[in-house]
Amino acid sequence: MASRDLNRLITLLTRSPGLGPRSARRLVLHLLQDRSARLDPLIAALQAVASRVMTCTVCGNLDERDPCSICADAERSPAEICVVEGIEDLWAFERSSVFRGRYHVLGGTLSALDGVRPDNLRIDRLLDRLAPGSGVKEVVIALGATIEGQTTAHYLRDRIAPLGVEVTRLGHGVPLGGQLPYLDEGTLTAAFRGRQPVSS
Amino acid sequence: MASRDLNRLITLLTRSPGLGPRSARRLVLHLLQDRSARLDPLIAALQAVASRVMTCTVCGNLDERDPCSICADAERSPAEICVVEGIEDLWAFERSSVFRGRYHVLGGTLSALDGVRPDNLRIDRLLDRLAPGSGVKEVVIALGATIEGQTTAHYLRDRIAPLGVEVTRLGHGVPLGGQLPYLDEGTLTAAFRGRQPVSS
Repeated sequence: MASRDLNRLITLLTRSPGLGPRSARRLVLHLLQDRSARLDPLIAALQAVASRVMTCTVCGNLDERDPCSICADAERSPAEICVVEGIEDLWAFERSSVFRGRYHVLGGTLSALDGVRPDNLRIDRLLDRLAPGSGVKEVVIALGATIEGQTTAHYLRDRIAPLGVEVTRLGHGVPLGGQLPYLDEGTLTAAFRGRQPVSS
Repeated sequence: MASRDLNRLITLLTRSPGLGPRSARRLVLHLLQDRSARLDPLIAALQAVASRVMTCTVCGNLDERDPCSICADAERSPAEICVVEGIEDLWAFERSSVFRGRYHVLGGTLSALDGVRPDNLRIDRLLDRLAPGSGVKEVVIALGATIEGQTTAHYLRDRIAPLGVEVTRLGHGVPLGGQLPYLDEGTLTAAFRGRQPVSS
């Protein structure tokens, strides 16, 4: 390809998750097809994020303020903290509106294979938030149902339980819309063991 | 989600081809994970493209110069023009290195359904380039093997042939790596009719 600038932009985009060379090229041509409506607003939006968005020193969320809007929201319960692996998980919970407490972003899960140890995660910061007088009554561990997620959940429970804070985890079972023949045995077993009365 | 800036960026990205809400969120978080190595260089690359890349007034290619590096390259034959639908097609030819002439980007194909008429495409500009004394001997019509591509090819041939310039099109047949049971009848028919002696 002829243009050095275009090559450089496409190469950078190709390093991003989910963008191969072909989709990066299509994206760039799409932006250039209407510069004032596509390319310029995207540059402005990226600059706004780069200059204004910061990491919340309390929970690890991204926001234009620190503490973030969730940590600073007096209407959200300070008694419950939902522990998530990453910010994407936090966003997913916010879309569901099911949780009205505060969050704590761990920044990963424990993994012997990848060499992730407790001090690589934001665990000390979490324990600080649970200190006596903090008013936190429950920590919901909302990690993935993977080996790493479960290991991390057990580790956190062992660290948190002595502080007198209740530790819960997400329920396992059949996902909504899920069809039994397509579920793995582990999920089916968890769903059977977690069976509940049919509400009237 | 809490941050207005992040929301705006994700919404803009979601309007691009191939990026759904989930992949746009992942892309933004990926960029924010390492601002100096990911976000800042991407902004700089987008700004470079926005300020420097322009459309070649001869062929319609994108480059930092006008005429573009291909049109200005004295080593490329001015006797052959390859007509493509879009810049992505031009890039694909350049990657293959099979063609050493110049290009002409039409900007689309004729389509009664989508209301694309000849004057919506860069056809007059192409005919200008074929005027007597231009030295162009062959126009290769490299459009997709679709109804619109074929219609456009026939239209172009009818306009170009009277100028005494040879008009060719890409060969049809079995794509390399293609397996016969997976090919449609049209391709198989074209491949059979276009059979060639087995070279020794």
